Amino acid sequence: MTQIHQLTRRLQKKNDSKIVLLVADGLGGLPLKPGGLTELETARTPNMDQLAQRGVLGLSIPVLPGIAPGSGPGHLGLFGYDPLTYDIGRGVLEALGIDFELGSDDVAIRGNFCTLDENGLITDRRAGRIASDVGAALCRKLDEITIPGVEVSVRPVKEYRLVIVLRKKGLKGDVEDTDPQATGVAPLDPQARNTESQETADLCREFLRQAREILKDDAPANFLTLRGIACRPEIPTYEEVYGVRAAAIAVYPMYRGLARLVGMDVLDAGATLETQLDRLEAAWNDYDFFFLHYKYTDSTGEDGNFDAKVARTEEVDTAIPRIMALDPTVVIVTGDHSTPSKMKAHSGHPVPVLLAADSCRFDGSTEFGESACLRGGLGQFEAKYLMLQALAHAGRLEKYGA
Amino acid sequence: MTQIHQLTRRLQKKNDSKIVLLVADGLGGLPLKPGGLTELETARTPNMDQLAQRGVLGLSIPVLPGIAPGSGPGHLGLFGYDPLTYDIGRGVLEALGIDFELGSDDVAIRGNFCTLDENGLITDRRAGRIASDVGAALCRKLDEITIPGVEVSVRPVKEYRLVIVLRKKGLKGDVEDTDPQATGVAPLDPQARNTESQETADLCREFLRQAREILKDDAPANFLTLRGIACRPEIPTYEEVYGVRAAAIAVYPMYRGLARLVGMDVLDAGATLETQLDRLEAAWNDYDFFFLHYKYTDSTGEDGNFDAKVARTEEVDTAIPRIMALDPTVVIVTGDHSTPSKMKAHSGHPVPVLLAADSCRFDGSTEFGESACLRGGLGQFEAKYLMLQALAHAGRLEKYGA
Repeated sequence: MTQIHQLTRRLQKKNDSKIVLLVADGLGGLPLKPGGLTELETARTPNMDQLAQRGVLGLSIPVLPGIAPGSGPGHLGLFGYDPLTYDIGRGVLEALGIDFELGSDDVAIRGNFCTLDENGLITDRRAGRIASDVGAALCRKLDEITIPGVEVSVRPVKEYRLVIVLRKKGLKGDVEDTDPQATGVAPLDPQARNTESQETADLCREFLRQAREILKDDAPANFLTLRGIACRPEIPTYEEVYGVRAAAIAVYPMYRGLARLVGMDVLDAGATLETQLDRLEAAWNDYDFFFLHYKYTDSTGEDGNFDAKVARTEEVDTAIPRIMALDPTVVIVTGDHSTPSKMKAHSGHPVPVLLAADSCRFDGSTEFGESACLRGGLGQFEAKYLMLQALAHAGRLEKYGA
Repeated sequence: MTQIHQLTRRLQKKNDSKIVLLVADGLGGLPLKPGGLTELETARTPNMDQLAQRGVLGLSIPVLPGIAPGSGPGHLGLFGYDPLTYDIGRGVLEALGIDFELGSDDVAIRGNFCTLDENGLITDRRAGRIASDVGAALCRKLDEITIPGVEVSVRPVKEYRLVIVLRKKGLKGDVEDTDPQATGVAPLDPQARNTESQETADLCREFLRQAREILKDDAPANFLTLRGIACRPEIPTYEEVYGVRAAAIAVYPMYRGLARLVGMDVLDAGATLETQLDRLEAAWNDYDFFFLHYKYTDSTGEDGNFDAKVARTEEVDTAIPRIMALDPTVVIVTGDHSTPSKMKAHSGHPVPVLLAADSCRFDGSTEFGESACLRGGLGQFEAKYLMLQALAHAGRLEKYGA
């Protein structure tokens, strides 16, 4: 158990407070030119600026200084789970990304359809990037595979990508990829990294044996490789560690999945920020903590579209009045990492944080932006500590010691 | 393995970037009077000020807040090696300081010539501070000592100080000093702190037995005491943990030795900053990472000479144009600790850091100095994280997790 959760388990107390965590994915940015403004600083955000005046700002470090996180560690940090302690395997993330409900004994695997020649050597590691409907049809065939004592599920992701889930009590996930990362060679045999994972390696081998037979006439997708083989990590729930009933309102499956990992209830969110806010209002009396996820600040950043990221940031700002109308005890607006449109990628820059509550010690901020956050009252801190601030400002933590 | 190096081993990737780490030893300072300027703030440093405008500033904490480090931990921190995990014994530092190339099985010992009376009691723990040439001649005699199965090396340092190195596979270094830190008493017998170090204690005893015979007519230096007995620590190399080919360009042996400990190639640096820069230019295509060490900001600080430290800081500034002409991807200018001339000693004050790269989030800095660093975008951080920032801005780290 992490130090943070040892503390929160011991100090948590219940009250009627409400906490809203609004995550604008990839919120942090960069100016395009020296001395310029970032996307967030360029955006017209009157509501967040007003919130900054009654709250405190800061910068969060998602993992460690300089480290750019993926969505998994980025969100775990915000949720208060040390992203270096809780390492989520790629197969698990891929399963979460298609809304597959992983159980605690599941091993999840990312699969890639590939093309083998007559000698069994890989000629295309992505099976000619087959269309998604072709991939889905092949997954339905593979889903018929049965192995005694194990529940096998095969689901399509997109094009040549799929997810395989093996469900059996006690299965471990330390098995090497079978993708040799090269053409002209045969796929690798599944190798366990430790004796506890030998059974999983054997099950993978049996799965691949049957798959080879089933797919033999389906060139260019006449086989598959396995990658990112991983167990669902053992993660204590929000209810356990914080004593809060938490709900996730996210449009994209990946974020619903990450929320489910930490025991949040996943609510139907519709497809837009408006429908997410409708859901928030409807569920307001049923939960203590709400995680709202907004994707497009990240995707526009990944596209390298500065102006579009500015516009999407302004859209986030429009959500604030409806949230504040509910009179939350604590509101946090932040990102899971930075995605500067200048870099077209997640980056390791610290992430703007805005926390507003009646108990804030005002820091003189007048607007929400990276430069203001650098001078903000929360300072620079590891993202994993954000939940402590949220709970504290919600009055949900007892004093530590006498 | 430290958490930092677990991450960098996993995330490291290669590219054509170049990183320059310019260490002005003891760079951090203090104003002489309240409200005054530090040495760095007093110095005219137009080139570093310009660099500060396109980069980010911050303050590094060498070990933990308030702790003044020696050169060893100061540099290990900058190199990304937790100075509390990698504890370098004094004997090892002394050997590094005379350019002795320590092997991985070496035990290094600092020796002090001393004076014994006819009863074998110490009358002078420094043997009357004999001249260096006298000490060197005695070391040549001691270097003749042979012990079966062990390679024994004895080298002079200065005046009454010497280094003894014992080389034998598997030797451990946990042996108590034999210097009783008092006169009127006999030197102590070498005592092992654990059973693994018993052999080393026995070898020390045998060495001292022979040395007593050899030196018996050499009063005032008719014996020696052993201090800081220590193994060369097991440290993974830069190549292993960061995947970079690193070169050190340092005038003083101690810093060459510290660089060698982490696997840097030590290049001939000449005797001046000019010759160091010549070497940097000549080696530019052969390495990914360059550590340049400049000593005189520390030595003038230790002398308590504020004006001389200012002048030496201005000399460091003159190096910037030649470095920038090479178009490095990342340039860092910092110190391994503070050496305020007001204190005439290493101090625990945080150390100014300047990092310049195209991917910096500008922090509005217009000059390089302690006050500007306090408001800088890097914040205050433990020095061991600096290498993560360097690698991140050089594009040499993959994203953590998906």
